[in-house]
Amino acid sequence: MSETLKRLAEVIESRKLANGGNPEKSYVAKLFSKGDDAILKKIGEEATETVMAAKDARVSGDKSKVLYECADLWFHSMVMLAQFELSPQDVLDELARREGLSGLEEKAARKD
Amino acid sequence: MSETLKRLAEVIESRKLANGGNPEKSYVAKLFSKGDDAILKKIGEEATETVMAAKDARVSGDKSKVLYECADLWFHSMVMLAQFELSPQDVLDELARREGLSGLEEKAARKD
Amino acid sequence: MSETLKRLAEVIESRKLANGGNPEKSYVAKLFSKGDDAILKKIGEEATETVMAAKDARVSGDKSKVLYECADLWFHSMVMLAQFELSPQDVLDELARREGLSGLEEKAARKD
Amino acid sequence: MSETLKRLAEVIESRKLANGGNPEKSYVAKLFSKGDDAILKKIGEEATETVMAAKDARVSGDKSKVLYECADLWFHSMVMLAQFELSPQDVLDELARREGLSGLEEKAARKD
Repeated sequence: MSETLKRLAEVIESRKLANGGNPEKSYVAKLFSKGDDAILKKIGEEATETVMAAKDARVSGDKSKVLYECADLWFHSMVMLAQFELSPQDVLDELARREGLSGLEEKAARKD
Repeated sequence: MSETLKRLAEVIESRKLANGGNPEKSYVAKLFSKGDDAILKKIGEEATETVMAAKDARVSGDKSKVLYECADLWFHSMVMLAQFELSPQDVLDELARREGLSGLEEKAARKD
Repeated sequence: MSETLKRLAEVIESRKLANGGNPEKSYVAKLFSKGDDAILKKIGEEATETVMAAKDARVSGDKSKVLYECADLWFHSMVMLAQFELSPQDVLDELARREGLSGLEEKAARKD
Repeated sequence: MSETLKRLAEVIESRKLANGGNPEKSYVAKLFSKGDDAILKKIGEEATETVMAAKDARVSGDKSKVLYECADLWFHSMVMLAQFELSPQDVLDELARREGLSGLEEKAARKD
């Protein structure tokens, strides 16, 4: 797995209340203390912000906000994964399973 | 970067029309042929499906759908990144920039 | 209630399978036949499309798509209400309850 | 139009800064002061909350939160409409235009 995803997953894990995360000091610990709905709501929010950033980028030519919001979306996805005792490696494994031509065609067949 | 993300980004890149992607045969090429809005709409859709899958998992105890939908969300994020000539490595770099305690606290300070 | 909302709620109600709705002939009956997730997914989709239409309107100056997508969002909200045996009148009653200065301030107090 | 929607649209209109709305005192005036993105972000958020409330209702049997979140979604849609100098009557007119069997079939034809 990417070193970044690995380290980030570890930091997120350490923010769980059971692991000593402090909601007063850490944004992620605060999310964990609020529970499922607060975390899931962030998925919806960050997806919307990603869409808006992409729309803006077509006008301004500045793609940095797209990157920033996409990072926020992945970051909060990882908080959700941790909340469900899943890891980014599990997502990468699922993506690997589908990867390659055949995988994408399988997806096409499924979705259309 | 993760080998999976790297290979997947390459497959997605190869599905661009300019790179010979065929909208009749490939789901991703079809998305590229439809353009920005079709791709961005998928971000909103997959975020909603991820939220629903997480809600379901709390009732059923089956987390596989959460993983599946999160993979779909990341996959379509990668199609969007490619559409904007960005890569998953760019997202990882942005996440690395924020990583660690200080980064998360910076985020907390920014958001709250 | 608005005559339009009333008539529309009646048409939607008549599309329920128990009321003779035919999924082969009616879009709404088809949604009902698919169930909760298909309907809820549309809420997420139409919200995303509304956001994109609003972004586009600021560039093009054409607000008709905002109206169109907002109508789609309300329409699918009404399908969801029907699916849960609720009506637009119930939503209007809830809005009326909050209406006026005090109601909005109450909301402000709650949200902030 | 529904009296409730009419009065609510008037209250929202009065919260515009140009009409004397005070962002320190009114939630809606504060949204207007933040501009398009803050308002559009709320559409995404409230849609996500509506979806979660509907999921919860199937487990708890309590539909009041569905109503509450749907009211929030319509309310913030109305703030967006006001931001674009549109009114709920415009949305109702659009819905009326599509209303009836033929309208729904037209929609089916368009979407499928």
